Amino acid sequence: MTEIRLTSEIGVDLAQAIGSDAMIAHAAMVSSIGGSCHPVGDVSPSKLEGLLRTLITKRHGTPFEHGCMTVRVHAPIKVWREWHRHRVGWSYNEESGRYKQLEPVFYLPPPDRPMRQADGFKAMAPTFDTVDQLEYDVVCGIMKRAYENSYREYEHLLSRGVDKGLARDVLGVGIYSACYCTANPRSIMHFLELRTERPDAKRPSRPLYEIRAAAEKLEALFAEQWPVTHRLGCENGRAAP
Amino acid sequence: MTEIRLTSEIGVDLAQAIGSDAMIAHAAMVSSIGGSCHPVGDVSPSKLEGLLRTLITKRHGTPFEHGCMTVRVHAPIKVWREWHRHRVGWSYNEESGRYKQLEPVFYLPPPDRPMRQADGFKAMAPTFDTVDQLEYDVVCGIMKRAYENSYREYEHLLSRGVDKGLARDVLGVGIYSACYCTANPRSIMHFLELRTERPDAKRPSRPLYEIRAAAEKLEALFAEQWPVTHRLGCENGRAAP
Amino acid sequence: MTEIRLTSEIGVDLAQAIGSDAMIAHAAMVSSIGGSCHPVGDVSPSKLEGLLRTLITKRHGTPFEHGCMTVRVHAPIKVWREWHRHRVGWSYNEESGRYKQLEPVFYLPPPDRPMRQADGFKAMAPTFDTVDQLEYDVVCGIMKRAYENSYREYEHLLSRGVDKGLARDVLGVGIYSACYCTANPRSIMHFLELRTERPDAKRPSRPLYEIRAAAEKLEALFAEQWPVTHRLGCENGRAAP
Amino acid sequence: MTEIRLTSEIGVDLAQAIGSDAMIAHAAMVSSIGGSCHPVGDVSPSKLEGLLRTLITKRHGTPFEHGCMTVRVHAPIKVWREWHRHRVGWSYNEESGRYKQLEPVFYLPPPDRPMRQADGFKAMAPTFDTVDQLEYDVVCGIMKRAYENSYREYEHLLSRGVDKGLARDVLGVGIYSACYCTANPRSIMHFLELRTERPDAKRPSRPLYEIRAAAEKLEALFAEQWPVTHRLGCENGRAAP
Repeated sequence: MTEIRLTSEIGVDLAQAIGSDAMIAHAAMVSSIGGSCHPVGDVSPSKLEGLLRTLITKRHGTPFEHGCMTVRVHAPIKVWREWHRHRVGWSYNEESGRYKQLEPVFYLPPPDRPMRQADGFKAMAPTFDTVDQLEYDVVCGIMKRAYENSYREYEHLLSRGVDKGLARDVLGVGIYSACYCTANPRSIMHFLELRTERPDAKRPSRPLYEIRAAAEKLEALFAEQWPVTHRLGCENGRAAP
Repeated sequence: MTEIRLTSEIGVDLAQAIGSDAMIAHAAMVSSIGGSCHPVGDVSPSKLEGLLRTLITKRHGTPFEHGCMTVRVHAPIKVWREWHRHRVGWSYNEESGRYKQLEPVFYLPPPDRPMRQADGFKAMAPTFDTVDQLEYDVVCGIMKRAYENSYREYEHLLSRGVDKGLARDVLGVGIYSACYCTANPRSIMHFLELRTERPDAKRPSRPLYEIRAAAEKLEALFAEQWPVTHRLGCENGRAAP
Repeated sequence: MTEIRLTSEIGVDLAQAIGSDAMIAHAAMVSSIGGSCHPVGDVSPSKLEGLLRTLITKRHGTPFEHGCMTVRVHAPIKVWREWHRHRVGWSYNEESGRYKQLEPVFYLPPPDRPMRQADGFKAMAPTFDTVDQLEYDVVCGIMKRAYENSYREYEHLLSRGVDKGLARDVLGVGIYSACYCTANPRSIMHFLELRTERPDAKRPSRPLYEIRAAAEKLEALFAEQWPVTHRLGCENGRAAP
Repeated sequence: MTEIRLTSEIGVDLAQAIGSDAMIAHAAMVSSIGGSCHPVGDVSPSKLEGLLRTLITKRHGTPFEHGCMTVRVHAPIKVWREWHRHRVGWSYNEESGRYKQLEPVFYLPPPDRPMRQADGFKAMAPTFDTVDQLEYDVVCGIMKRAYENSYREYEHLLSRGVDKGLARDVLGVGIYSACYCTANPRSIMHFLELRTERPDAKRPSRPLYEIRAAAEKLEALFAEQWPVTHRLGCENGRAAP
């Protein structure tokens, strides 16, 4: 039987990116400068910052659409179930469970993931505590056993020539899948607002732990490509324009 | 232990719909009639048919966006994995595996689903044969065993107070989930073009058996609300405008 | 020469609408009720209100996408120049200046439209005052003269057999055009947030007077179809979810 | 009085672009390669061509969404009236007639633009002939006179302190406006299919002369960034995937 691989890693790798804080500023400036708009490049840092701050605080969102970033993400299917619900300004191409045998890579939570329902737990406002090493091992042991069993049954079905697109029905949403994701800065900002949990957020969100882990990696890449936009967004309560 | 429920049914129930062949015609006619456009209702059947045929054959798609249909669908997660990739003109609200315990309802293929890789099978152009009763029983037996095991482990994790959004990682994509889906006629036509497999299709598609089953139920509802559009679309090779 | 017609009216007529506050609630409830979700209809008023308030204040926007409204709007081209920039969840079919002679209907401001740059006028935060009857007559007189001249030249070009799609280049953006617009409640709420100007708006907007006039008519239709959603949206600072 | 400027030029300048034929191929290949997908770069030319041809002929469109191009376009308002109707995958920031005085730059057709309704002209399938120099001069003379008059009235209104967003109502849609446009390759291909007119097009389109002129410039930029995609698209009847 194939050995399964267990991991807590969620990979977010940069494939390509274009756009800059200056490009956003130029797109915005066309409204008041028009036909004689400067070529991209020559906005002073202080003017750039002032303009981007105005755009963000007044929620003029469209200038933030001129650019894009493509990342290659390796994450459990349960993360894709949420990520793919971002429809506007996002493009996807994902690994197929119909055309290839899915690799035996499964998700286990890291030890510091809060995972046990807290005292006074409420279904619609759930809070969780971390667990001790012993309990962590028990939980991971159960998950591992379940994953192993499901992958064994999957291979069992494949060995009988069963359609991969049917056999995979027994594989849990903890199995990994790779996907290329492309989005513009505005759509990324919306994703980050919803899928991170930060004390400086004006509108608190309670994202799933695993998509939050992906979002934090994406945010680091975003901050490198659009540093002023990112900083001002944080200062403005992280509300996407 | 909770008994699991096995089914081959995929439910597509109409929640609401508005729009008509005449509404589409009126939206199109505004381009040449303008300000004095007739109120919706008084287009003769022959004019209606002629106009809709022109729109479909010349691929003027926008008039087909004025209307919408909401369906409540009960389908395995693997179907949602494909359906939710339709981003434009589609809206979704789905059952959550974070906020509720998922019900123990799992998908089994019906006996006539082609499920065994055909002789000379090619990965990128897969074809399948149906199997005999004996093999069918074996396949379903394996799937049932896998589902039962996964649901037992799921409940095991829940009984320890584990976050539902983590425990569900062990549940296969054959488990059912309910979702409201809303789309306009044009988006539905695109969905049907891609997710059905018909001899009269100009551009053949090879949809997954299970989403095709859902698409056929959706098509029946679509044909009731927009009968002329549906008929002319079929006559025109099922290409969405 | 054809007599031109001058008007300050912007027409927004309901063509069709579907959806309800209850439908929105049901779409939201599927997340926690799932497969056994009640049929649309039986939510108590107090539960409905509580649920919709939560959705609006916590900005869960997707349930507000299940429904649609189609309006037939008669407005100056300058209004369409702004309206058509709403891309997501909006569909349009408009009168064509290529296929028909545009009717000689032109926009004049109503007497109470603030139209003269206020003292201390700033280009990027413009404010305007209303004018007295005398000045109003002068402004309208100039506009009328300009419109008349342009329509005369338009007809002059048409009489020489010039392509309508070229001849119309001389017609000002104050000329009227009819358009069918369809949107879901969420997209309408975004439009209203941006295109109205109300003291209770959390995020102030400074819409063009003429699109604001259209938005107010649209809001009245919206409030009739989704009364609880509309009221709670207003109470929550008019921020679209 | 301000001198108006007349031109037949429509400017389409590249601001930024990212993406490549190889990036499209890699996005597609993730479906069958998954987690172990090669880094972007190492696809052989023949494999690349074969894969892209399959994607285009089988209409697998999503891989063509991973990339973007931003252009700065200077075109008459009548072109924007059509261009802005492309909603999916397109982003815009345009010069504002509310915040700045519009520059006196107006469109005149070039001498070789077919502009007179042909014999046997039909409104819904219009065809046009070019005109001789004399007629051309007459048409341009009328347009120039109309533009001059409208711009004089515009300045007249501005001189009285009238809101720019009202005064511009008298300016014809032949006046120029600058706009940044960003789109992904798939959306550009859809635009080109609809807005060009070529003998090799499987589905003929009859675009307005002026947007066609813009589309041809855009196509040249597109062909430089995605040469294999562009060539195969042409070979496949220019149908966007």
